Amino acid sequence: MPAVFFLVPISSILALGFAWYFFRQMMRMDEGTDMMKKIADHVRRGATAYLHQQYKVVIIVFLVITVIFSFLAYGLGVQNTWVPFAFITGGFFSGLAGFFGMKAATYASGRVANACRTSLDGGLRLAFRSGAVMGLVVVGLVLLDISAWFIILNIFIPEMEAGYKLMTITAIMLTFGMGASTQALFARVGGGIYTKAADVGADLVGKLEAGIPEDDPRNPATIADNVGDNVGDVAGMGADLFESFAASILATALLGAAAFIGYGPEMQTNAVIAPMLIAAIGTVLSIIGVFLVRTKEGATQKQLLKSLGFGVNMSAVLIVIASFLVLYYMNLPNYLGLWGSIVTGLLAGIAIGQSTEYFTASAYKPTRRIAQASQTGTATLIISGVGTGLISAAVPLFIIVVAITFAFSFATGFSYSVASLNYGLYGIGIAAVGLLSTLGITLATDAYGPIADNAGGNAQMCGLGAEVRQRTDALDALGNTTAATGKGFAIGSAALTALALLASYFEEVRMMFVKFLDRPAELINGIPAIDASFLDFVHHYEVHLMNPKVIVGILLGVMAVFLFSGLTMNAVGRAAQKMVDEVRRQFATMPGIMEGKTEPDYARCVHISTKGAQKEMLIPSLIALLIPVIVGLIFGVPGVSGLLLGTISSGFALAIFMANAGGAWDNAKKYIEEGHYGGKGSESHKAAVIGDTVGDPFKDTSGPSLNILIKLMVMAAVVTVGVAVSYSLL
Amino acid sequence: MPAVFFLVPISSILALGFAWYFFRQMMRMDEGTDMMKKIADHVRRGATAYLHQQYKVVIIVFLVITVIFSFLAYGLGVQNTWVPFAFITGGFFSGLAGFFGMKAATYASGRVANACRTSLDGGLRLAFRSGAVMGLVVVGLVLLDISAWFIILNIFIPEMEAGYKLMTITAIMLTFGMGASTQALFARVGGGIYTKAADVGADLVGKLEAGIPEDDPRNPATIADNVGDNVGDVAGMGADLFESFAASILATALLGAAAFIGYGPEMQTNAVIAPMLIAAIGTVLSIIGVFLVRTKEGATQKQLLKSLGFGVNMSAVLIVIASFLVLYYMNLPNYLGLWGSIVTGLLAGIAIGQSTEYFTASAYKPTRRIAQASQTGTATLIISGVGTGLISAAVPLFIIVVAITFAFSFATGFSYSVASLNYGLYGIGIAAVGLLSTLGITLATDAYGPIADNAGGNAQMCGLGAEVRQRTDALDALGNTTAATGKGFAIGSAALTALALLASYFEEVRMMFVKFLDRPAELINGIPAIDASFLDFVHHYEVHLMNPKVIVGILLGVMAVFLFSGLTMNAVGRAAQKMVDEVRRQFATMPGIMEGKTEPDYARCVHISTKGAQKEMLIPSLIALLIPVIVGLIFGVPGVSGLLLGTISSGFALAIFMANAGGAWDNAKKYIEEGHYGGKGSESHKAAVIGDTVGDPFKDTSGPSLNILIKLMVMAAVVTVGVAVSYSLL
Repeated sequence: MPAVFFLVPISSILALGFAWYFFRQMMRMDEGTDMMKKIADHVRRGATAYLHQQYKVVIIVFLVITVIFSFLAYGLGVQNTWVPFAFITGGFFSGLAGFFGMKAATYASGRVANACRTSLDGGLRLAFRSGAVMGLVVVGLVLLDISAWFIILNIFIPEMEAGYKLMTITAIMLTFGMGASTQALFARVGGGIYTKAADVGADLVGKLEAGIPEDDPRNPATIADNVGDNVGDVAGMGADLFESFAASILATALLGAAAFIGYGPEMQTNAVIAPMLIAAIGTVLSIIGVFLVRTKEGATQKQLLKSLGFGVNMSAVLIVIASFLVLYYMNLPNYLGLWGSIVTGLLAGIAIGQSTEYFTASAYKPTRRIAQASQTGTATLIISGVGTGLISAAVPLFIIVVAITFAFSFATGFSYSVASLNYGLYGIGIAAVGLLSTLGITLATDAYGPIADNAGGNAQMCGLGAEVRQRTDALDALGNTTAATGKGFAIGSAALTALALLASYFEEVRMMFVKFLDRPAELINGIPAIDASFLDFVHHYEVHLMNPKVIVGILLGVMAVFLFSGLTMNAVGRAAQKMVDEVRRQFATMPGIMEGKTEPDYARCVHISTKGAQKEMLIPSLIALLIPVIVGLIFGVPGVSGLLLGTISSGFALAIFMANAGGAWDNAKKYIEEGHYGGKGSESHKAAVIGDTVGDPFKDTSGPSLNILIKLMVMAAVVTVGVAVSYSLL
Repeated sequence: MPAVFFLVPISSILALGFAWYFFRQMMRMDEGTDMMKKIADHVRRGATAYLHQQYKVVIIVFLVITVIFSFLAYGLGVQNTWVPFAFITGGFFSGLAGFFGMKAATYASGRVANACRTSLDGGLRLAFRSGAVMGLVVVGLVLLDISAWFIILNIFIPEMEAGYKLMTITAIMLTFGMGASTQALFARVGGGIYTKAADVGADLVGKLEAGIPEDDPRNPATIADNVGDNVGDVAGMGADLFESFAASILATALLGAAAFIGYGPEMQTNAVIAPMLIAAIGTVLSIIGVFLVRTKEGATQKQLLKSLGFGVNMSAVLIVIASFLVLYYMNLPNYLGLWGSIVTGLLAGIAIGQSTEYFTASAYKPTRRIAQASQTGTATLIISGVGTGLISAAVPLFIIVVAITFAFSFATGFSYSVASLNYGLYGIGIAAVGLLSTLGITLATDAYGPIADNAGGNAQMCGLGAEVRQRTDALDALGNTTAATGKGFAIGSAALTALALLASYFEEVRMMFVKFLDRPAELINGIPAIDASFLDFVHHYEVHLMNPKVIVGILLGVMAVFLFSGLTMNAVGRAAQKMVDEVRRQFATMPGIMEGKTEPDYARCVHISTKGAQKEMLIPSLIALLIPVIVGLIFGVPGVSGLLLGTISSGFALAIFMANAGGAWDNAKKYIEEGHYGGKGSESHKAAVIGDTVGDPFKDTSGPSLNILIKLMVMAAVVTVGVAVSYSLL
């Protein structure tokens, strides 16, 4: 192992250290008045209770899956006992990252509200650095787990012929991603259902029926709503990107081990650790970026955005330079081309973020047209939002198409011969790593959003002065923009990561066949299996578009996406209806609430959201886990390959549609609230509130859950690859 | 040519003859009172004016495309001058069928209303047989065109080596389908925008703002609304299925010519004309079925449905028997297996129809749950509809997966070897033909819907007695059910047809390469091109899932689908807003309207819909036509193949989601109007009306237009195959 590898564990420790430092710094701040402490405590306890509940379910699922995997591995004669452990650590670290991030966020929001009593800059800095706790814990734990496993496996895995050792190591490590995916799915689906059941319930009865403002302490669902922001947006987003970060690095490492196998073990090692190093350096740059974020008192929203952007952009610019140095230093053949791939990935991320902003911010035409459609009623507003959302999905698809084309082309030196395929796919993988390398700081801007939102909620509930609320509102509005671009970023990176994973699926097919099933003597397209390339296996398994198994697979992939989104959508609808009934009941039976004399029963609403989320998250999640296995059992490798591509392509499009339509409705409502088309209380506003409510599960439940789905299904296929290779029915 | 082929032109003449007979029979009926005549005349003139406008645009597009195609064909050295003519006749006959069907429908509706003044049975028979005019004209003209071209080309195309003559003939004939597709796209998109702009506009101002009932003559948009039913649902649906019917027969013929090339010219001919014969016999059975539809006075909706079902089902049962005899008589190898494929296709059609009914009829849970969600407001109703719609898309996808698997497996005798691929794909094609063979009668039940709807409108506008309106309402309600199942049927057949077309795309690649580009000496996978199978070409062009061009193609296919649906959705939104403004203006400036003293300016609303449809239909349509060519120019054959599969899979899913969500909202509203959850005028009802309005462009514009899109894009790729083969950039 080259000495330079140890930059990875070092950067991991740096990240965790600074996370701890920011956390302690935040904890030293004052939490404000007693009322503020009480509200914050309510939210914190609700969130912790929910996470405990969720982890209980997840642990059971993990135990079951681990047993099944071990059994499958045993049944297939796979000697490797490391897989279940890698799987479990992936899930454990992901859960840990979500837990720490959520803790930090719930401790922070009250303190941010309090800091806003003094200054805007103080509030921004505190909120952002508390978000950075999440960002740095996520990247730190990923890098820690990766370096630990890489060192352990390097020591314990015996030497093998022809560079297979590194392939075996990276293949085992990839199952770490599967554990993280599973954890992330429950976090996103469960958290997403929780937060939107509470939000929709609170809005429908509170805003529309009772006519009280958002975050009014008289609304029984308001605590649940604030809890939801933390469990859905903080813990969910963290687990999501934990998984993307891990999977992009691990898949690229495996693709590197495969692509550079012919260059000898040293170059192969360099190709494997290159993505890890880029991620490590990106992490250090993220820490620097976090320190660059500050603003002055009385800053406009534009200035606030600029100060956040400065930190993020500086990290991105520096990683462009640093990644060139890494590739140059690692002496990879065509390092200049690979650097082009990384730049492509970064540019794609920026472009997707821009397109998200264009389609969802009220400064631009699309959202304004949706707001305008409110003048002819709710129906045209909804139609306009759906139409615009569908169109908006086309743009990131196009960006990803361009990105894939260029990332592949740069990495192969614009060669499209069969022999270049491996390098091209490594190029796509490393583009994803480039895009995600500064995750430490981009995730900080994501987690910042719900913290600012909750700070605003805290200020509202505690009736702090107008000036304070103006400050928290400014932070909150900024959070909405960063959340929208964050979602674009999450889905863009998920698509690239999923494609890299898909490529590693075929490497796994080959390894399973050659190594674990011990069939190297078999002829694959006339070549002994041991010498056959993964492309030979693609041909061997007839993974072409005229194979009905592939076609069937693609259709089933699209089916899974629609089924999954429909189920999560309906789950929110059902849970929200229960919440509406409960809030109505409390208003009806406890007349003191509206007069502000009786405290509403917040805990019951928290309980309803928790129960709803727990109950509703299981079936969609099991579908995601089981479909790849079942399709593998029936239609084999070609069926699974089609399935994955069907899921990735349609899931990506549907996710963006939902995220953008939801974001645009949200901002169209805010635009009207600024006084356009009659402003607050007008018929247009009522229509826009309904649009916003419809958009809630779009943008915060089904849309983001699809991000995980497209990665998890590939992961499940990768891990159970032996089933498709050995036992397929047709 | 075997004598049995002449069954095809004979059945065509029979179909056209009976269409004429039913038309004359209908025209002999009385059109009722002067008021009834006036209303019917308004609608008829509006519809005719619209079609004239539309055909004007379409003719220009046709001229441009024909010139481009001829140029492309010339530039590629294709000697065959028949292609542009086949293309033009396809478009011409499709337009003619739409025109006749629409004429019959607009003449019929007033007469149906009048017949309902006497008896329910009379009304049903008249409405249904007028719908049958459309059904029989469509199948008659398709079969006429096919037989004419088959005879002409057989005479004029010179003999070629190795059975290539039949492949050349069927390849040329396939471009007939492209003409029909282009025509259908404009009919569906233009008609869909027209009808929903009028409908949404009429509902939003009339029902919600002015509080007047549907089809009230005081509503200025009501005539436009009724015109819309005819141009959208009758002419649009007709052109759509004209295209599916033609394309499924022609693609299967080409696949048959390719699959059975090794069995000698006689067997090859049999394989080519077998799908034509099945369609011909299905047409005769459809005529018989039409005569079986009758009911007795005072029939319940269930009985009405049963009497329609009896005709349709008898035709289906008889075609199962007849198709066995055809295959047996044609002596095709494995005729029993191919028969299994046909039965599979028919069963899939029935199953998709059932699932559509389950998800959209108020007799079942899903729609009732949507209705129930209205109790917690518009937002939960919309969320529930979207969720249910998404889930409902999974079922037909699953059915098509099962159908493809079995149709393929039966046709190959459960062999999945490479050598069986051609037979399997022929099996999928013939399954589509089986599903569509009794189109004459299934289309009659589709066209029946809008006729009954318009009859109800006529009765309402002319203030006919309660008993009459009860009868027209019964017919109308039935029409809604048949329309929903008809849409399921249309989309199911579209998916199978598109897959058959996709397979023929590769046959065309091979032919283009070998015949027209004259490169038979080139080695394809080590085999001289002339001997290479189309599977060799699949491998040669690297049409596998790890080729980034294929992946890019799939993503672009999904992109096209989302862009296209978004554009059509927004088109309706914009046109509807203009309609709303106009209706509001008339109510405001002409106070006599609401008092019933002044006749509203119907013509202006008709004009607005017409102009909106014309203006808005061009861009989405051009996208559909251009994307396959552009992708071919950049990414070549693998890119186009991916594109088509991406479009088919995601387009299919999105189309069902939209059709079912729209249908379910519509029926949820009706369910509430029956007195549930507060009935008419309640808050629940208002929410349901909004849901219904949102669903209008879902189910009648974007959803059905996607049906055409998935076929047209394959067709455009088939016709411009030379571009991808010769000029691709990468």
